[in-house]
Amino acid sequence: MSAEPYEPVPYEPADVYRPRRSPGRESYDRALVHAILDEGMVAHVSYQGGHGPEIIPAFYVRHGEEVLVHLSRRAGLASALQAGTPFAFCVTHLDGLVLARSAFHHSMNYRSVIVHGVPREVTGEEKLRLFDLFIDKAVPGRSKEARPANGQEARATGVFALPLVHVVAKTRSGGPNDDAADMALPVWAGVIPLAMVRGEPIEDRVELAGNI
Amino acid sequence: MSAEPYEPVPYEPADVYRPRRSPGRESYDRALVHAILDEGMVAHVSYQGGHGPEIIPAFYVRHGEEVLVHLSRRAGLASALQAGTPFAFCVTHLDGLVLARSAFHHSMNYRSVIVHGVPREVTGEEKLRLFDLFIDKAVPGRSKEARPANGQEARATGVFALPLVHVVAKTRSGGPNDDAADMALPVWAGVIPLAMVRGEPIEDRVELAGNI
Repeated sequence: MSAEPYEPVPYEPADVYRPRRSPGRESYDRALVHAILDEGMVAHVSYQGGHGPEIIPAFYVRHGEEVLVHLSRRAGLASALQAGTPFAFCVTHLDGLVLARSAFHHSMNYRSVIVHGVPREVTGEEKLRLFDLFIDKAVPGRSKEARPANGQEARATGVFALPLVHVVAKTRSGGPNDDAADMALPVWAGVIPLAMVRGEPIEDRVELAGNI
Repeated sequence: MSAEPYEPVPYEPADVYRPRRSPGRESYDRALVHAILDEGMVAHVSYQGGHGPEIIPAFYVRHGEEVLVHLSRRAGLASALQAGTPFAFCVTHLDGLVLARSAFHHSMNYRSVIVHGVPREVTGEEKLRLFDLFIDKAVPGRSKEARPANGQEARATGVFALPLVHVVAKTRSGGPNDDAADMALPVWAGVIPLAMVRGEPIEDRVELAGNI
């Protein structure tokens, strides 16, 4: 994931996708976008389905200037993507609850990346090779330990690649932005940090019932 | 949030929105849906924009049989929702990384809820009352402490309510589902639990720079 050389060229803002709110919270910085994407495990992807907008959570991994999305062939999204349907992709990390002196200025600290585009399906040898990236994202080196996917297993899973072209990061950090007139109110203000943590691994034994 | 009586009637599956993958992971159980929604702080919402599908993260709260979504008036989504645009809403909690003996059976434990529908805009007195739910979700009782929103602040924020009618929960829990033939492989298998935790509150003082 970190093999490509550092690329200081920022992404190009696209007017049609530029978020309208809080322009100061946007960034097109490539290193920031990569860092946000590399930290997450699950993205939400959306597309226009036959009955209106659809949204699903999906496992993903960044690979250079693409994000790879891992989908069951049976999922509706896999069919939609094969047909060249455009989609919107979003990863969000929640970093804190921002408690202000006024109700209005309560907020959240977060880092998110939104990508728009039409994905391509990854197939053949490339697909088999890229499978390892998903496994190694969960636990580095893991792909060398587990039994590799066989042909039937590989066929059951779709891998779709979305180019990092129409990309924007949106972030908020720091304390509350209370109005000057509210600063003397006797109300606790500050940030409650939030973080995703990993617990102690639980080994699979008889007592860990398998899921369907 | 827990004031309404327990309602044992499940949601009705709608064929058009029924996820096609892993039917055993779906649930229309009302208590399960409520619990998943009440635990989260951020949803992803998607809609069809003028240039294709759009997706954004948004603060939300469940209120009885609706989810309320909090949006800046300046956000594109607020304009779209005012026009009666259908949207898809998803909340996902990531509970664990599932490490199997085979690459193919690696998975994730999660709990998600997806809601489809056309939201209504909440206005007037109802809107002012419902603002408190967002604040109290972050810290119970907080709305009694902070300065309430004034008229201008209330106008700057849109609150949209989506009925819990077309709703499905999807969950996975437990250990890996390895093939019988792989059970004897000398590969560690099990679950790495994941959880969102709150850190020590950081009080807002001069050294906590305000965000724009």
